[in-house]
Amino acid sequence: MTPLWQREPVGVVGLGLIGGSLGLDLMAMGAQVRALVHRQATAERAAQRGLATEVSTDPVVLAGCGLVVLALPLDRLLDPDPALVAALPAGAVITDVGSVKAPVLRRWWELLAAAGDGPAPCRFVASHPMAGTARAGVEAGEPGLFRGRPWVATPEAGTDPAALEAVRELAEALGARWLCCDAEAHDRAVALISHLPVLVGAALLQAANAGGGAEAGAALVRALASSGFADTTRVGGGNPELGMLMARANRAALLEALGHYRHSLACLEAMVAGEQWSDLQQSLELSHQLRPDFL
Amino acid sequence: MTPLWQREPVGVVGLGLIGGSLGLDLMAMGAQVRALVHRQATAERAAQRGLATEVSTDPVVLAGCGLVVLALPLDRLLDPDPALVAALPAGAVITDVGSVKAPVLRRWWELLAAAGDGPAPCRFVASHPMAGTARAGVEAGEPGLFRGRPWVATPEAGTDPAALEAVRELAEALGARWLCCDAEAHDRAVALISHLPVLVGAALLQAANAGGGAEAGAALVRALASSGFADTTRVGGGNPELGMLMARANRAALLEALGHYRHSLACLEAMVAGEQWSDLQQSLELSHQLRPDFL
Repeated sequence: MTPLWQREPVGVVGLGLIGGSLGLDLMAMGAQVRALVHRQATAERAAQRGLATEVSTDPVVLAGCGLVVLALPLDRLLDPDPALVAALPAGAVITDVGSVKAPVLRRWWELLAAAGDGPAPCRFVASHPMAGTARAGVEAGEPGLFRGRPWVATPEAGTDPAALEAVRELAEALGARWLCCDAEAHDRAVALISHLPVLVGAALLQAANAGGGAEAGAALVRALASSGFADTTRVGGGNPELGMLMARANRAALLEALGHYRHSLACLEAMVAGEQWSDLQQSLELSHQLRPDFL
Repeated sequence: MTPLWQREPVGVVGLGLIGGSLGLDLMAMGAQVRALVHRQATAERAAQRGLATEVSTDPVVLAGCGLVVLALPLDRLLDPDPALVAALPAGAVITDVGSVKAPVLRRWWELLAAAGDGPAPCRFVASHPMAGTARAGVEAGEPGLFRGRPWVATPEAGTDPAALEAVRELAEALGARWLCCDAEAHDRAVALISHLPVLVGAALLQAANAGGGAEAGAALVRALASSGFADTTRVGGGNPELGMLMARANRAALLEALGHYRHSLACLEAMVAGEQWSDLQQSLELSHQLRPDFL
């Protein structure tokens, strides 16, 4: 059967990096895209950029959509505008793009149940397209952002299989690699490989700043920092609000990840302090061997 | 006056990444390059690659050099072959390229004093060209490696000013940015911006491995790791022997840097644990603002 995104208009809520890129690709594939944005200036610029067929600040624009993608930041996903929830077409498949899944899933199942959906099967599919650049806002969207990147869905026993299939068809049409896993497993994994690196790199910047001291020392540390330091701190020096929102939404898993990290670092430090040089080399050898698995 | 490297043959001890690149640039600038290597196979390949005018495994090749660059790994700089020390021409300016300066400086001043140089001014100039790639060995040398990169010298009160000047002329001819600072200040700075990132990234790889657990969890963590994780762990997953040698030679400064790092990370962790979200965002904002200073 023709995929849902081809049969019925697709709603996109938010036209930042993810929503805008989604709009560009869907438009290029001939889909009808109806976008809801917060500000009139964004609506005008989005129309100029061709991110959607129709774009409006009025939630009524979503009427008639068979599939709605909530491309909103985590805080607005977890505390959505009641007018948005009320405007979602009855029976439409709803998905999101948040980088933390368990709290989003819980929140939206409650919201839809309260809005009259009643018991499962639930038409809300929690999902996470893992595509990012440093850019944000209405200028950030770019064609082909999802191609070759993982798009993780976290269905539960109550998820409507047809809704899950509709989101899978969308993700695969965009060229993403489709993966399904448990929401808690997803959140633990992203805590380790995405949220922990933010704190690890942020702490390194602050340590280099504090350790360099004032004046000559501080200037020397800055003059000698090279590409290795730049790479290690890239995500740690990223968007502060985004970093905070991810930590807040994924607090428990992030604290667990920090526990693992503190332990690993303490072992390395103990080897340096104890002058256990062959142990240190073996431990660095383990890290060296692990890294290709993560690329 | 014509720089020393143009007037007299330049000795290069070791033809790995640094020594080989040095040889290529010096040869291109018309210098006489006499290289000492450890193995006959290296000597043959170095001659094929045109890394030096003469290359030999016999220290006698250094006879007649006015300037000798010790392009050796840290362990061999700190515990050099007595035959090498004996073969250094009397009066020649000697410099090294090690990434830790205070122990190398101490060691070589003792060695040269014991070899008959007597009291200062000392013709040994401790220096550190901060140019690196992931490559090593006789194939690694490349033209233009030093261009635009810092080349730090750490002279002391007893350093012969003419020797320092000869090394500066060499560094600047290679296009490097010349900097002088105190050896201890250099070692504290590189502990923060070069040696600490190795341990920070190595610990992150081990935490992601441990935190992912077995089977499905481990596979998921690996599948979801993206460019942010790859960048944060690039130097941490690098050459284990190099990482160990740097830690061993710069142990005190590295432990001090780790102390700063542990403090910065503990502050961030306490904000997550204590749900101090506005403090966390402010702290991440500080890291965000600091990073451009280090690029």
